[in-house]
Amino acid sequence: MVTDKLILNGNQVAESIKEALVERIQQLSHKGIVPCLATVLVGENPASATYVRMKGNACKRLGMQSIRIDLPEATTTKELVAAIQQLNDDPGVHGILLQHPVPAHIDERAAFDAIRIEKDVDGVTTLGYAQNAFGFAKFPSCTPAAIMAILAYYNLPIKGKHAVVIGRSPILGKPVSAMLLNQDATVTTCHSRTTHLEDLVRLGDIVVAAVGKPNFVKGDWIKPGAVVLDAGYNEGNIGDVDFEACVENAYAITPVPAGVGPVTIATLLKHTVDAAELLSE
Amino acid sequence: MVTDKLILNGNQVAESIKEALVERIQQLSHKGIVPCLATVLVGENPASATYVRMKGNACKRLGMQSIRIDLPEATTTKELVAAIQQLNDDPGVHGILLQHPVPAHIDERAAFDAIRIEKDVDGVTTLGYAQNAFGFAKFPSCTPAAIMAILAYYNLPIKGKHAVVIGRSPILGKPVSAMLLNQDATVTTCHSRTTHLEDLVRLGDIVVAAVGKPNFVKGDWIKPGAVVLDAGYNEGNIGDVDFEACVENAYAITPVPAGVGPVTIATLLKHTVDAAELLSE
Repeated sequence: MVTDKLILNGNQVAESIKEALVERIQQLSHKGIVPCLATVLVGENPASATYVRMKGNACKRLGMQSIRIDLPEATTTKELVAAIQQLNDDPGVHGILLQHPVPAHIDERAAFDAIRIEKDVDGVTTLGYAQNAFGFAKFPSCTPAAIMAILAYYNLPIKGKHAVVIGRSPILGKPVSAMLLNQDATVTTCHSRTTHLEDLVRLGDIVVAAVGKPNFVKGDWIKPGAVVLDAGYNEGNIGDVDFEACVENAYAITPVPAGVGPVTIATLLKHTVDAAELLSE
Repeated sequence: MVTDKLILNGNQVAESIKEALVERIQQLSHKGIVPCLATVLVGENPASATYVRMKGNACKRLGMQSIRIDLPEATTTKELVAAIQQLNDDPGVHGILLQHPVPAHIDERAAFDAIRIEKDVDGVTTLGYAQNAFGFAKFPSCTPAAIMAILAYYNLPIKGKHAVVIGRSPILGKPVSAMLLNQDATVTTCHSRTTHLEDLVRLGDIVVAAVGKPNFVKGDWIKPGAVVLDAGYNEGNIGDVDFEACVENAYAITPVPAGVGPVTIATLLKHTVDAAELLSE
């Protein structure tokens, strides 16, 4: 383990985000408002169940409320949309998170887009995506926002840097590319059809891995001095970046666990508090 | 002038798009429908007035209707939005084009977003942008769609190619980056803050210039064999690409005029016919 490297401590960034929420949650409580996140889980994916539980616990620890809607695997798109509509209309709910992925028979995009934009704290709606791409979203997707929060916390420069994003999903690769671009990075978005991927990653001053494949990014892909952010969360708590190898060339790097993950959850809490404030204005 | 190069003939692509509309316009006329594009021009920008006139004339030549709303320079955002609302509600209007740029005191984003999505044939709304980025827009922005149409017309491969886009505007650089990405290009989006721009452009198998600076892209920035698309339209009908210099290395290249421009207008007409069909379903 190399020690002269900047290991980007996601727990520390998450704490700083959560600390800033304490007083805001108190202020809301004076108005009789407890920020409330509703999580919707469809089916029996054990990893998803764990994520949902973690999010609920994180709410509790901050004195926020969370409600959990568990729907059976056989839920139709229509039933799921109806459940979301109910949460949209519930004045006690400020944020709605539909845990991804939903079972394959469901139209996930339709379900995401059923979420009222004022409660789209996970930044998954189509409209929210564009607002983020244009730089004025209230709630950018949480993992991209977490990546930006880590860069900001450690004062890592973005402007004029070449950022290489591996992945192009609607809730991760695409929005983080947009956010880096809006902060004046030059952005290359790579994916499964990219040829010469290693050569492109080697150009990156900032490398974001959002692939969903364990230890996918190899040590010799990293340009000396690069900043490496690992948004992967694969089985067994393994990131998309081969940390032990990539830390050699990197100037700064997020570990897994204790990297992007906890900041994502803290960002979700922050967005829920933001939503509670905005909805009570 | 080198002659063994593929000069991408925008007039030809535009004709093929317009030819395919003739029968559809006839079919609509049997139902008593004449596709109608409403153009909205605020202020006295002579270039904008020319574009609006060209678009109106193009409609006329195809037997389509166009109406033109001219608003004074002093128009407020509220007044402009009200004018757009009227067009939204007018069943005789199928497409609405707000000519860009509007005077600086107007909130252009608010004005764009006032356009009903079913009539947003120029693809300028925030929601339409995201639908396009996610690959399911009815009406992608016309210039990006025109660039894609040229690549398709000439069977130029996109999948796995490295596309370098110079520019990141909401109606050009960003959406064309998204469209190339959705067709499996690896996409690098560059802009005014990009460092080492020439080196990055030299990586491009496909280069899209959307800068708004005459003859900005130099000949030695082009990788031998690259496809060069010039979305620029600067004063005096000068593109963003130094054509005479860039044609040397390029495999294929759009000229200015008679490149992307006419295809953009043909795309606008196509979208208006699409909208007339969809609205009359």
